[in-house]
Amino acid sequence: MFSLVRGSVCAHLARRHAHSIPSFTHLNAVTHDDLAHFAKILPPNAILSTLPPNLNSADDLVPYNVDWMGKYHGQATTVLRPRTTQQVSDIVKFCASRRIGIVPQCGNTGLVGGSISLQKEIVLSLGAMNSVRSFDPVSGVLAADAGCILESLSDYIARYNHIMPLDLGAKGSCQIGGNISTNAGGLRFLRYGSLHGTVLGLEVVLPDGTVLDQLSTLRKDNTGYDLKQLFIGAEGTLGVITGVSILTPPAPRASNNIFLALPHFKNVLPLFQTVKRQLGEILSAFEYIDRTAYDMGLEHGLGPILNPDEVGDAQCFVLAETSGGNHDHDSEKLNNLLESLMSADEPLIYTGTLSQSPGQFASLWALREGLTECLQKEGKPYKYDLSVPLAEFQNVVDAVRARLISKGLYGDHGITKVMGYGHVGDGNLHLNAIAKYGYRPELEAALEPFIYELVASHKGSVSAEHGIGSMKTSALRYSKNDVSIEWMRKIKHVFDPLNIMNPGKVLPSV
Amino acid sequence: MFSLVRGSVCAHLARRHAHSIPSFTHLNAVTHDDLAHFAKILPPNAILSTLPPNLNSADDLVPYNVDWMGKYHGQATTVLRPRTTQQVSDIVKFCASRRIGIVPQCGNTGLVGGSISLQKEIVLSLGAMNSVRSFDPVSGVLAADAGCILESLSDYIARYNHIMPLDLGAKGSCQIGGNISTNAGGLRFLRYGSLHGTVLGLEVVLPDGTVLDQLSTLRKDNTGYDLKQLFIGAEGTLGVITGVSILTPPAPRASNNIFLALPHFKNVLPLFQTVKRQLGEILSAFEYIDRTAYDMGLEHGLGPILNPDEVGDAQCFVLAETSGGNHDHDSEKLNNLLESLMSADEPLIYTGTLSQSPGQFASLWALREGLTECLQKEGKPYKYDLSVPLAEFQNVVDAVRARLISKGLYGDHGITKVMGYGHVGDGNLHLNAIAKYGYRPELEAALEPFIYELVASHKGSVSAEHGIGSMKTSALRYSKNDVSIEWMRKIKHVFDPLNIMNPGKVLPSV
Repeated sequence: MFSLVRGSVCAHLARRHAHSIPSFTHLNAVTHDDLAHFAKILPPNAILSTLPPNLNSADDLVPYNVDWMGKYHGQATTVLRPRTTQQVSDIVKFCASRRIGIVPQCGNTGLVGGSISLQKEIVLSLGAMNSVRSFDPVSGVLAADAGCILESLSDYIARYNHIMPLDLGAKGSCQIGGNISTNAGGLRFLRYGSLHGTVLGLEVVLPDGTVLDQLSTLRKDNTGYDLKQLFIGAEGTLGVITGVSILTPPAPRASNNIFLALPHFKNVLPLFQTVKRQLGEILSAFEYIDRTAYDMGLEHGLGPILNPDEVGDAQCFVLAETSGGNHDHDSEKLNNLLESLMSADEPLIYTGTLSQSPGQFASLWALREGLTECLQKEGKPYKYDLSVPLAEFQNVVDAVRARLISKGLYGDHGITKVMGYGHVGDGNLHLNAIAKYGYRPELEAALEPFIYELVASHKGSVSAEHGIGSMKTSALRYSKNDVSIEWMRKIKHVFDPLNIMNPGKVLPSV
Repeated sequence: MFSLVRGSVCAHLARRHAHSIPSFTHLNAVTHDDLAHFAKILPPNAILSTLPPNLNSADDLVPYNVDWMGKYHGQATTVLRPRTTQQVSDIVKFCASRRIGIVPQCGNTGLVGGSISLQKEIVLSLGAMNSVRSFDPVSGVLAADAGCILESLSDYIARYNHIMPLDLGAKGSCQIGGNISTNAGGLRFLRYGSLHGTVLGLEVVLPDGTVLDQLSTLRKDNTGYDLKQLFIGAEGTLGVITGVSILTPPAPRASNNIFLALPHFKNVLPLFQTVKRQLGEILSAFEYIDRTAYDMGLEHGLGPILNPDEVGDAQCFVLAETSGGNHDHDSEKLNNLLESLMSADEPLIYTGTLSQSPGQFASLWALREGLTECLQKEGKPYKYDLSVPLAEFQNVVDAVRARLISKGLYGDHGITKVMGYGHVGDGNLHLNAIAKYGYRPELEAALEPFIYELVASHKGSVSAEHGIGSMKTSALRYSKNDVSIEWMRKIKHVFDPLNIMNPGKVLPSV
């Protein structure tokens, strides 16, 4: 996975981001003495450092210094891998006393450079804290270490017929603490809602080393301010999440999906309303894929899903999923839906398919879930994760393409493809522009702040689910007003007056 | 409704709570000059005051000074009823400059004395801010003033076939700003989850008068700290919620309910698991009622629901509701459930009934929803709203009754009935002890902190959904550790360094 990251791309990126990296003059780099202190807290195999006496190679640190896209190239000399909350607390307390910056890191699968050491901050990797603490099959409440991999947790509770309330493409690598720190959305958001609703408790090591134990497993607890909410989506800037309790729903007994080709984008909205009305509570996903994205998927072997003759000149596609308790009931609802769609006087769709087996179910999802990897194969993607009104999805994509054409940057020499897909039910558009031969400053300049201004004009969000990280700090103002940003700063200052915790992330430097 | 509150009960209550009311030496009482300033902000009919020149009678202020139970008797001389956020901001700014305490108040239907002026703080009533700001039938996002009555909002969106994600007995009086300030749970929590998940945006006037506009209507927005979460459940101590945006689900097309009599409490847990498994995603409520509560309901004319011969010596009852998209499918699931329950070798239930009409549906709910009013008719209820493990529901009720018996306080001279009912699906037990002839200090002393210690021994919550208010500040420590309370204080201090905003609520005085 990390073969993507070596060489010129990284060097280029260091240049690309150099202008926006704040100078951490308030922080100290790790020294030999610091390593000696860390060695009192952790066993030898839990410390990686390019400094003496460890003298690990830079390659050893690549999994922690470079994100999976190969877009962000971190500068950490030292990675610590604690196994207990007490170790985390001891490390943080020491770093606070020494003014050493800390980057909490889970799976390093984020998309906005939130878990990368911008200068010489240490990486505090939670990956070795990976035990389930408890699971109650009656209430469905799971308590686990922050470093548990999402898919491992899914597997763990599957034996009790429960599922995690979130699912995303990175599930095999991402960790639950990172999911919560970034307030991950994903593919089940439509059905199971936000982590602000499903996370019941957190254990957090604050920037002074204090352990804030709010690891409640109660479904309801109205005793004072719900402080844990602040850490959901704070991207590790307010403290290190070390433990998590989360409500997991019962596994559906029946899952089905359909894949539909639509002649025009304008049909998506009425289709969504029809599907919602007819499928009701069993609708668990409603995903949008535009023609460019669909064709890209086919080119990379994801499919074919529909008969090309029937697809014709379809402008876009929808994947809808149902999760219910009774297979016959769900199939009847889905068949009725398809019949009514196909027999309408002015059909909203050209054609569609209903999965008839687990294999077909998986292959319909494979196209949607495989798009992110296809983008990487096509070149270097500029990824934007936007909340905009559903009616504007296509307009936003078209406007970006038109902008690139007008700047003479559309084509093999610049951006080869602009496409949109995403979660219609959540108003969440993933807009991607592929730079076939790599990232270039003039391409970024054509895209930003143009896209952010476009989103702001629709009162949207410049980050629906990916977060701010180090990528979008300067774009924060397009979605949050001055008062809100001022209050974020106050909250940051209360928790982290020394600014050691994931510095340079979320808040723009002043 | 307010006839309950006059006379000796109030005088008694003033005594009862006198010991726990902090002294607000840092605050000033409203003066004639202050009223003159308020008159520049608000029209005459928006100011009520017992002070000159207004000289309203104390009776005029009763709806604002006395809660609906008649338990809490406030001391406000002045009530302000702004119509706009700007007016709220102007009032708060002035109060901050003059160190006048402010009690934000919506429907005044809370159960823990959270919206009552403990000394001479003004009451800032949101009731005149009662307009819907927008509703999007595609996304289901509703934006409204904080003073909108919950039931009015339900009626408003019913025309678009949407429902509010929360419902509670006080719906005809409570207001959405108060619901959110108290993080209300209620009858739909099992299905639609916490307000932390469904509230998408808030507009809040902070204690210095600044308007924090986070009234986003986006389903997803990961741009920085989710500050609005802090105000959900803060009971007005961090600012005044003036506007709300909230995700409303589509109305179910079919609603059904069943009422079941169980021989033993120990059957509740396996019944809950069976019902969850068989009804799956259409289960929308699973309510528990113990025998004492059921019999009380029948005595007050709520019912009969089941054949008394078939009920026999049933120890407890369950009301389960389904909300689904297809009446036939839902009925089939429910009938299958009832058949399997009745035909089991060792049935979990004695008997049960399935509602066959909207009238029957309503009458089954009427018993559960009518219990609160029955309590008031029986005497003065000590109300405890607890999160405890489901398996302990009956033990907790029995332990409280045994405690009163051992103290010689059980009977007409003391507590006549101890009963439990609540939301099984949420682990939320409402425990009620009825003082037939009124509240008395020795009764309270027998109940508290006994109940709180009992809850703490089960790692439960001393307030599952009612909040802390002024009633439970000293009990907060049973559910939150020192570090958490210390951090609540820090958050309070950041937002309200002058401690003018709902002083004496939530946090214990130091």
